[in-house]
Amino acid sequence: MEGDSTLQLRVFDLNCWAIRYLSKRRQERMRLIGDVLRQERFDLVLLQEVWSEQDYSDLKAKLGGCYPFSHYFRSGVIGSGLCVFSRFTILDTLLYQYSLNGYPYMLQHGDWFCGKSVGLVIIKISGIIFNVYVTHLHAEYCREKDAYLPHRLVQAWELAQFIRHTSKAADVVLLGGDLNMHPEDVGIRLLCGWTGLRDAFAEAKHFEGCKDGCTLIPNNCFTIKTELLPFPLGIRIDYILYKAVSSFMVNCEELKTTTGSAPGMDIPFSDHEAVMATLHIRRQREAASATLSTAEPALADVVTEAQTEVGVGLQAAQRQRYSTGRLAVLALLLLLLQAAAVLGTLAGLGGQPFPKLSFSLLAFLAVGILLLTTGLHLFHTIEVKMLQGTEEQMRMALRVLQERP
Amino acid sequence: MEGDSTLQLRVFDLNCWAIRYLSKRRQERMRLIGDVLRQERFDLVLLQEVWSEQDYSDLKAKLGGCYPFSHYFRSGVIGSGLCVFSRFTILDTLLYQYSLNGYPYMLQHGDWFCGKSVGLVIIKISGIIFNVYVTHLHAEYCREKDAYLPHRLVQAWELAQFIRHTSKAADVVLLGGDLNMHPEDVGIRLLCGWTGLRDAFAEAKHFEGCKDGCTLIPNNCFTIKTELLPFPLGIRIDYILYKAVSSFMVNCEELKTTTGSAPGMDIPFSDHEAVMATLHIRRQREAASATLSTAEPALADVVTEAQTEVGVGLQAAQRQRYSTGRLAVLALLLLLLQAAAVLGTLAGLGGQPFPKLSFSLLAFLAVGILLLTTGLHLFHTIEVKMLQGTEEQMRMALRVLQERP
Repeated sequence: MEGDSTLQLRVFDLNCWAIRYLSKRRQERMRLIGDVLRQERFDLVLLQEVWSEQDYSDLKAKLGGCYPFSHYFRSGVIGSGLCVFSRFTILDTLLYQYSLNGYPYMLQHGDWFCGKSVGLVIIKISGIIFNVYVTHLHAEYCREKDAYLPHRLVQAWELAQFIRHTSKAADVVLLGGDLNMHPEDVGIRLLCGWTGLRDAFAEAKHFEGCKDGCTLIPNNCFTIKTELLPFPLGIRIDYILYKAVSSFMVNCEELKTTTGSAPGMDIPFSDHEAVMATLHIRRQREAASATLSTAEPALADVVTEAQTEVGVGLQAAQRQRYSTGRLAVLALLLLLLQAAAVLGTLAGLGGQPFPKLSFSLLAFLAVGILLLTTGLHLFHTIEVKMLQGTEEQMRMALRVLQERP
Repeated sequence: MEGDSTLQLRVFDLNCWAIRYLSKRRQERMRLIGDVLRQERFDLVLLQEVWSEQDYSDLKAKLGGCYPFSHYFRSGVIGSGLCVFSRFTILDTLLYQYSLNGYPYMLQHGDWFCGKSVGLVIIKISGIIFNVYVTHLHAEYCREKDAYLPHRLVQAWELAQFIRHTSKAADVVLLGGDLNMHPEDVGIRLLCGWTGLRDAFAEAKHFEGCKDGCTLIPNNCFTIKTELLPFPLGIRIDYILYKAVSSFMVNCEELKTTTGSAPGMDIPFSDHEAVMATLHIRRQREAASATLSTAEPALADVVTEAQTEVGVGLQAAQRQRYSTGRLAVLALLLLLLQAAAVLGTLAGLGGQPFPKLSFSLLAFLAVGILLLTTGLHLFHTIEVKMLQGTEEQMRMALRVLQERP
């Protein structure tokens, strides 16, 4: 790109909801997504919840002609679900797995097994370096009593820190993904404030799609209607965010969402709506200045608010670490007591021997509880450490913000 | 720093071997380390294996006067063991936990529980931005049959990638730590080749210390002599590496190691020797060019060699994933068989009921094996994914290296 010319970039973002054996009409929808992507020829496609590597390989085979470059981010037991298709060469990639991501014993929620991460791909278009991030944060299962809020805030903080530290040589930063946070939530304010990223929906010159840019709407046949009862219009949790560093300027010319069904079809792509942005990138005559968008006193308030929530999570984690530790000690004591009784009987000290069956069952139960609670105790110890680490990083951020002239 | 003036930076690096209840004379040695650090007034102190937060807090209290800034990196069950003390303000920090780090069932080696990571602190001295990394890679327990080589190579690769991606705005990059690799090992060549980092020992104008710069020597009363039998002089596994990007130049004026005991004392700081570098940083008239130090065809060979080793690890991980999966299925079949037998007896179909005690013991055994092998199967699934991901990243690196003009 030379002189005053403008580079146009069309970006597609979608949480595909492609869980093998669980997601409805998965194969049909993945085929449909592939067809539309091939037809529409976006510049960049950022997908989440592509849990099966086979689905990714099928997409890759189908889209090879129009998107010759792609990357699938592997992580966790099931995978990260994240992948990127690009019309332009991918120069490099990096994956950062969030340190906290729910609880392994919350099997019904399953987030822990997914190895939630942020993936970075670096591409160069017309001499402009793009750092493109794709991510998917921990789901929110109950807004009124959101037990995962501290974990999601740690993720939002790590995402912001990862973007800040890895994007220093980039001209343009793009982030697409399912952030599982409403626009006014503290995590979104923290992410945008601490990185300087701007929300394509808020900045778009033209918008077309669901009211308020919602991406989880009652009008989609796959969404669970009861979950959306408090939000008659739906909620907006999928985002395209961007910023230009150095001497570039980015504008969102147009933002679109699908509206409950794929264009011209009777079924939707997914239970989420797709977000499609048309960005214009221009070289600026004067270099851009600050990278923090929010005024710094306001940003300090946001960091403090996030820190408070992380602190609440820390207290809960400390309580759980304590109670699992206490249970483990009790189970160990029971085992020792049984061992003493056996030794006593063998030495001919005791009176009547215990009934063998119930005695062995009790021992197995105690071993089971000991193993389980020890595992949980270790898990909550890690949780406590990571929450403390985040709290401390936030404290350091506040100090730096306050010390700035 | 203005004009042609030179900034001198004195860096101290040590693996402190401070494992609570296990490391010999830990408290005495930690006091000694604190005393010497206070006396010597380095600019930067990079420590590993400070496993107890109490030890860190004690050091912090002691060193507050001469090193007003410090950071402890929390990670894993036990911690990362990494901390930094600095005479200059720490502006920001980031932690990256390696995706692979040994096996949880190798309790005697214990690396898995440590959450091995690389920590980054950013400091600014006289207007120069320093990205300082501290790390500790997986130990090598048997050089002839090193089962952990693929994991250590994944760590070396992730370390190199993390440094490359996060140091793009830095003027000077410093890395200190126990890399658990000999200077000629493929992991060191990969790390230095792919990041452009240079080895302070190889570059030092003056050197004083153990022959060949060894940091694990038979002459240290805490080292295990039998492990060092093939290396009469010892081995060098602790490093200070550096590079200057942009328009700066770094030289290592002097490198020192301790030689089996702390200066003027009768006991060593640790089972490792400390590495102390005096670096000179000058502004260059002409900006530095390439950041890759090794010639690119040679670097491609190194990446290929590393990729082959990761491939060997991948095959082993796939075998283990398969065999643990098969065992889990067998345990499940046994349980189902038992359930069928019980149902048969209840329905009055079978002949004689089984002896209750051995029947329940067998069931518990089957449940135990099922849980254990399922856990291991999940673990090796993650291992396979991460090894595949690293292999793919290395393939991409080779492609980029080959495509360069």
